[in-house]
Amino acid sequence: MHFAKVAVVGVGLIGGSFALALKAARACGEVVGVGRGAANLKLALEQGVVDTIGADIGDADLVLVATPVAQYPRVLAALAPRLKASAIVTDGGSTKRDVIAAARAALGAKIAQFVPAHPIAGAERSGASAASAELFRNKRVVLTPLPENPAAAVQAVEAAWQACGARVSRMEAAEHDAVLAAVSHLPHLLAYALVHEVAGRADSAQLFGFAAGGFRDFTRIASSHPEMWRDICVANRDRLLDELDRYLAKLQAVRPLVENGDGAALEKLFAEARAARQRWLAGEYE
Amino acid sequence: MHFAKVAVVGVGLIGGSFALALKAARACGEVVGVGRGAANLKLALEQGVVDTIGADIGDADLVLVATPVAQYPRVLAALAPRLKASAIVTDGGSTKRDVIAAARAALGAKIAQFVPAHPIAGAERSGASAASAELFRNKRVVLTPLPENPAAAVQAVEAAWQACGARVSRMEAAEHDAVLAAVSHLPHLLAYALVHEVAGRADSAQLFGFAAGGFRDFTRIASSHPEMWRDICVANRDRLLDELDRYLAKLQAVRPLVENGDGAALEKLFAEARAARQRWLAGEYE
Repeated sequence: MHFAKVAVVGVGLIGGSFALALKAARACGEVVGVGRGAANLKLALEQGVVDTIGADIGDADLVLVATPVAQYPRVLAALAPRLKASAIVTDGGSTKRDVIAAARAALGAKIAQFVPAHPIAGAERSGASAASAELFRNKRVVLTPLPENPAAAVQAVEAAWQACGARVSRMEAAEHDAVLAAVSHLPHLLAYALVHEVAGRADSAQLFGFAAGGFRDFTRIASSHPEMWRDICVANRDRLLDELDRYLAKLQAVRPLVENGDGAALEKLFAEARAARQRWLAGEYE
Repeated sequence: MHFAKVAVVGVGLIGGSFALALKAARACGEVVGVGRGAANLKLALEQGVVDTIGADIGDADLVLVATPVAQYPRVLAALAPRLKASAIVTDGGSTKRDVIAAARAALGAKIAQFVPAHPIAGAERSGASAASAELFRNKRVVLTPLPENPAAAVQAVEAAWQACGARVSRMEAAEHDAVLAAVSHLPHLLAYALVHEVAGRADSAQLFGFAAGGFRDFTRIASSHPEMWRDICVANRDRLLDELDRYLAKLQAVRPLVENGDGAALEKLFAEARAARQRWLAGEYE
């Protein structure tokens, strides 16, 4: 699989890494970068993440949309009239139902050319400067293909992500959004909320002063891109709310164990959680 | 400051690292290891973490108690009659009010010899095999000295932890327990609860299967030692409950932002949290 011309809309961590990975795999010719931020685009060009910037992308063979998801309606509407018939479009959005709705509205009859994807390879870094050809290596990419997609288009997108080193699987969009709400979107919300709570306290300087490695790792994702995570939380708010409510119920169930100093029940919960996490780390759920 | 004979009760991550760090700094002579687990003690001996095991520690010049905190009453009661008058005792417990109460009950008139300490240098690894001479390097150690402690005893304990590479500060025990509840004990409880929630779901295999780096770091502390964290949560349950209730209130305040898709408010919260965390990472609260 070789794409003569690739266009990346939004040359950030995901878009820039996609460009670098395809180049490293010799899976593409020229890469055109498009985006809102002139300084970021210029940096992407200077660092060789993309070959040209701001050019027309109408003749691209493969387009990756990798902006925050709230920009998709505008981006896809601008793309639609210029997209050639043989082109394939994929994306890097962390939510899929809203992305598909936006694509249907914007692309119309060209919807068959759009194969939705979510590379599960975020980081708290952002921008073209964070891009890496290795970002997707052994990471999961979930495709949520549409009934309209020709098999060849899905296979082409799968091949592109595999060329980036990713492990590609397929899922229904609604299922994807529910799964990611539980294991990604909720933890982000929880980490942001904890840091915000600590930061808003009168003694926040002292609290941060004695925060250590556990706090650092627990809150790493609270350094993530606020706009990107705003869009994800809004786009996936129904599923995120489900997960938040489950978690609130869990904490309400844990609360009396703490209040009553129920050491046996706490140890059981901690040991079961630890055992599950160790099984996960050992690759039992790969 | 040189301690001819050091005794470590509980040769795990903290106790073993203390022994190795003092040896590396040439701040001690012989190190005697004592503990419940024969296999762990034997490993500590074989790996040179301690020089002898199971020996009498009555003639030790410095004793570190580094067991889970619920064992302190038993450990200190056994230690009390054997402790020589010139000996100093410190500890590695993550809670301090309960530790001090246990020490007062067990040590009686020898309480002046006990200088409570908390090295803020945990890890999800445990046991002598996880010990490292570098664990405390540039980490904080909080001393919560007692009114009975002679200045020389506090200084000796401070010097011992400084020899391990730590930055030593002093605090009231109650203040310590409140601060650590917020930035350490609560995050541990939250991480354990999230993993336990995911593990208990019918679709847990799929959820874990698509969990990635964000989930991994957020839940790293859910791989911590269940017994140790049981003891911490029970010992510090009043402060932990305060923090849990504050966090529940925070999540209840965030909930309508998600439910209503209030992007502006979510972005503001995320951006403020991120900015606070970046200031912390930049060392503003050191």
